[in-house]
This record gives sequence, C-alpha cells and structure tokens, in this order.
Amino acid sequence: MTDQLVEFHAKPIGVVHSPFREAQGTPIQPVYAGETQFEVELLPEYIDGLRDLAGFERIWLICWFDRAPASRLVVVPFRDSTERGLFATRAPSRPVPIGLSCVRLLEIRGNVLVCTGADILDGTPLLDIKPYVPEFDAFPKSRAGWFDHSRESRTHADGRFT
Amino acid sequence: MTDQLVEFHAKPIGVVHSPFREAQGTPIQPVYAGETQFEVELLPEYIDGLRDLAGFERIWLICWFDRAPASRLVVVPFRDSTERGLFATRAPSRPVPIGLSCVRLLEIRGNVLVCTGADILDGTPLLDIKPYVPEFDAFPKSRAGWFDHSRESRTHADGRFT
Repeated sequence: MTDQLVEFHAKPIGVVHSPFREAQGTPIQPVYAGETQFEVELLPEYIDGLRDLAGFERIWLICWFDRAPASRLVVVPFRDSTERGLFATRAPSRPVPIGLSCVRLLEIRGNVLVCTGADILDGTPLLDIKPYVPEFDAFPKSRAGWFDHSRESRTHADGRFT
Repeated sequence: MTDQLVEFHAKPIGVVHSPFREAQGTPIQPVYAGETQFEVELLPEYIDGLRDLAGFERIWLICWFDRAPASRLVVVPFRDSTERGLFATRAPSRPVPIGLSCVRLLEIRGNVLVCTGADILDGTPLLDIKPYVPEFDAFPKSRAGWFDHSRESRTHADGRFT
C-alpha cells in the first residue's frame, strides 16, 4: 500500500483570525468557546464560492494545524485522564494535522466570515469550508466510547500538546 | 494575506477500499450508502493510534479527493437544480479537495477498519480518522439554507463532477 500513497500538497484558501495566540487557554472545541466572535478571511479569488452560505447556521472549518507538535500515537486527551489511541481522540498532534471545527456562522462581509465557536489559533491556515447539514452530520445518539464515560470536564486547553 | 499562506504537504495515513470505481453511481453521502461494507486500511506504523476507537459507533474519515475535477466556484449540487456557491455545497470539486464522511464503524481488524457508509471512491487516500462525538458534532436542528428547501432527492452521483 505504501507505494500507492503519494504526498499531497495544496495551498490554503484563507486564514483564521482568532483571539487565541497560544494553545494554552484556547477552547478545546467550538461548543466550549462561548459567544466570542472571530473571523475567517477567505482569499478574494474564492469569494464567488460563498454564495448561498449565509443561509446555513453552522459551517465546518477544515484547517491545517500549522503549529501542532509532532504526532503521538497515544495521548491523554483533554477530556480524560487515561491514555487513548490518537485516532480515538480529537487531539491536535496528528500525523496529518487537520482540524475539524463546527462553528456558528453569524454574518458574511465580502470575503470575511464572522463566526462564534473559535477553537483555532490566530493565523491558522484554512483549507476548506463546508456547510453543516444535519441530515449528513447530526447523529445525536451515536455511541462515543471513552468519551461517554469520562468524568474529566476540561473545556480549555492546557499545555499538554505544546 | 497571500504571503502568509504557504503550501502545505503531508503523506496520507492509509487508503479506502470501496466498491466504487467511478464517481457515477457512488452515494453522495454516507447516509445514502445503505449497509454495504467497505474497508479503511491504515498504514501499519499507525496501528497504535487505533486503540479505544472501537467504542465509537461512528467516525469521521477525512480523505483526499485524488480524482476530483478542477475546482469550480459555482456548482449545481446533487441535491438541487440551481447554481450554488461551492462552499455552500458538499461537492467534491473544491480548491483543496478534502472530503469529510461520517461513517459507521463496525469492527477493527488489526490495521483495517470495517465500516458502512461508503461515499468514497476505491483507492482514495486517507488523511485522518477522528471519533464522532455528538457533543461536538451533532446539531440536529441547525438551519441548513438551500438544503432545507430543496426538492431534489438524488442520493447517488451522476457525472456532473467528472
């Protein structure tokens, strides 16, 4: 299989402007980020792709964790006190450091999206924006392994992944 | 902003084995894929990262659409008959061709994940696996723009993005 897997590459489509300059203190997921606003700036050449997006209450931001530390295959996730396999966590230190954030879209001003739900560091490169579609994305009763039994209630990052 | 945005690159972590060899006839989303099983093969070097994943009913597969056609900023999506901005759709022809699929995890056999919900072409490079966590990902009542009003009920791809 290794032979089939060639390196992929592309240029980001924009950048995230958020209040968070370092991992420590950044919300670990959008649901813990409260009402603080942040902005997503799209390269002007892509502005036509934003048509019709304002009708969606939430959007997926797919980002490149440009400052994530080297990947570790076993981690103690923010919401637990036990080591877990990396792919069973949302930790940022991944072999391919891609982040997935479901944020609330408030307004679109030209090539700038005003959102709430920042769990992303300021200056993080943006790879894609997708609309959040409940029919495709919402499975509220889906069983969630260790997460369902965790007693750790941390909502903001400490320094464990820096 | 353009100056800040440097090309990113990485090597995939695995590959998707699915029954679909061409876009036409492939389910447009996992929810339309029925019970057909498919496999996700992870590079053996990452196997330790799968620990604890079997407890999750659903997982996110983040893939690289290696055969997607050139990006178009305005498309007629599968579920509509009107042109829409690309970022307001889940169409595969994106500036950074990353796919996001919420699939059901049936079983893990070594470095192979057995799943249902294939909306992915056979041989597609895998970039990341994340657990599906309802608290982070499930917003069943989220308003979904044009999608909420669409009368188009297509569930499998035609040739429009090939």
